[in-house]
Amino acid sequence: MTNIRDLAQMAGVSVTTVSRVLNQHPYVSEEKRKAVLEAIKVSNYHKNINAVHLSKGKTQLMGVVIPFSDHSYFAMLLKGIAKQALEHNYKLVLFQTEYIESKEMEALQMLKQKQIDSLIICSRSCDISIIEEHLQFGPIVLCEDNPRSKISSTFVNHYKIFSDALDYLYQKGHRQIGYCIGRRSGTNSQNRELAYQHFHKKYRLPYNSDYIIDQCLYFEDGERVITRIKEMDTPPSALLVTSDQVAAGIVISCQNQQLSIPDDIAIIGFDNEPIAKMLNITTIEIPLVEMGGNLFQQALNRALTNREISVKLIERGTV
Amino acid sequence: MTNIRDLAQMAGVSVTTVSRVLNQHPYVSEEKRKAVLEAIKVSNYHKNINAVHLSKGKTQLMGVVIPFSDHSYFAMLLKGIAKQALEHNYKLVLFQTEYIESKEMEALQMLKQKQIDSLIICSRSCDISIIEEHLQFGPIVLCEDNPRSKISSTFVNHYKIFSDALDYLYQKGHRQIGYCIGRRSGTNSQNRELAYQHFHKKYRLPYNSDYIIDQCLYFEDGERVITRIKEMDTPPSALLVTSDQVAAGIVISCQNQQLSIPDDIAIIGFDNEPIAKMLNITTIEIPLVEMGGNLFQQALNRALTNREISVKLIERGTV
Repeated sequence: MTNIRDLAQMAGVSVTTVSRVLNQHPYVSEEKRKAVLEAIKVSNYHKNINAVHLSKGKTQLMGVVIPFSDHSYFAMLLKGIAKQALEHNYKLVLFQTEYIESKEMEALQMLKQKQIDSLIICSRSCDISIIEEHLQFGPIVLCEDNPRSKISSTFVNHYKIFSDALDYLYQKGHRQIGYCIGRRSGTNSQNRELAYQHFHKKYRLPYNSDYIIDQCLYFEDGERVITRIKEMDTPPSALLVTSDQVAAGIVISCQNQQLSIPDDIAIIGFDNEPIAKMLNITTIEIPLVEMGGNLFQQALNRALTNREISVKLIERGTV
Repeated sequence: MTNIRDLAQMAGVSVTTVSRVLNQHPYVSEEKRKAVLEAIKVSNYHKNINAVHLSKGKTQLMGVVIPFSDHSYFAMLLKGIAKQALEHNYKLVLFQTEYIESKEMEALQMLKQKQIDSLIICSRSCDISIIEEHLQFGPIVLCEDNPRSKISSTFVNHYKIFSDALDYLYQKGHRQIGYCIGRRSGTNSQNRELAYQHFHKKYRLPYNSDYIIDQCLYFEDGERVITRIKEMDTPPSALLVTSDQVAAGIVISCQNQQLSIPDDIAIIGFDNEPIAKMLNITTIEIPLVEMGGNLFQQALNRALTNREISVKLIERGTV
């Protein structure tokens, strides 16, 4: 393959001149420019874009860390990010980490090594201090409510959402309320657990840790939730389910197992996905595509901004 | 930021020597190597990985073209690709194209410019000849049955699958069979339409183009399908539905609208997603995650291979 030295030789000019022509530097005589362009044409030379990035210090690549690409919550965020990337002529480098910390580190490493211009971390396992250390290498954006950190973020107030939803169920007469969640670690989940604890204190309700069911990510996990609840001596009368997919799985499982919703068990889903509408599931609407778009915008610049996105309770037939 | 010239000056050696040390070239004296390493340490120099890629001609980046990241078919392929990428220390550059041809061209352009080492095109709008022109720049892999092309692929035989499924429904007594599909263009869809036409010829059945319902991608599209079928004077008695998500939406819609499955309408889904199992939907199992893994392996090397993946009819309660 032709390289820049070959071009210089063909055009009878210096390597510096070829470089200047490739980078549209003004100080090149018209004669030399023509000779270089002719050499490029004859040799069918393709500029190695890595050389351009090296000279410009920009790649037009943005990193996106997500644990699972087939999980609807992350797929929706990714959709919003990708939509903006399409418009702004950015490409996305996808890190599907499965919450493996070393894989998150690789993303940070790529930012450090200038392979990507910026990084969106939709969900993380690694410590926030490690991320803060890498801010010097480019913009990093999080999707969590972490007011003490120096990192930009787009988030919903999971503490308030959980508190409000629990109050709503309390007002509907529920005293034994459980919840289903993806994982219990993670800032968002810890905020939700705190709201759950405070709710029990506020109303002096007995706290039952069996009512917290984790590893709930996909539609099919709804079946496991119902199986587990049926085994309990005193099952919860209502569930907050942090994914509409799982909520839908619970609704279908209840149909299959002759449990009545909301009489036997009330359900509040999260996100307001189309499946929630079709199954008439009461849910908290979270504009995930919009949040993805906002994450992209924040990753474009270095200013520290923390943007809270508001949510809405959609009352349907499962409470 | 320190560059290679600064390092050379600090170490009292030439730029070439620094470059040799960075690239572990053998012909450097021990004394000079130590001086460079010391300068790197003192200056906290971070090697610009674009320079490394420039010298190695490899990026460890693989491009993946998908039209929609939130569509379960593509999310499953992507999951399989990403799983292999994780193991082989590759990063994925994601092109969510929404079937916009110019966005596919950008992916091909990045291959040409060596920003990515290879490219997986899960579904395309652009002409196959354009893709073939870009094979000289690196491995490109398709997910379609295109025996005439010079491009590696992993695929299922959509013609045969459709023919077999239609024969199965015929044997169950169905004579008015329709199908739901994402789009009618595209190699896979054209193969399916061909099977549909041949089926009607073989059994001398009247062909009704109203029975082909396109733009069926998501769960919620199932509602539109049922609305449309209820408006028909002579509705189909069975539907092949090329996505379990859409099939699930149809099943829920039928529940909501008091249509009985399979008596009023029989359904065969595609993919065998967990939602099909929970809703007891008869479906064609397609191992999408495995196919994604295979696409990744093919994209790692330049050998031309076409691998057909076999599928399986899972008989449940909707036929």
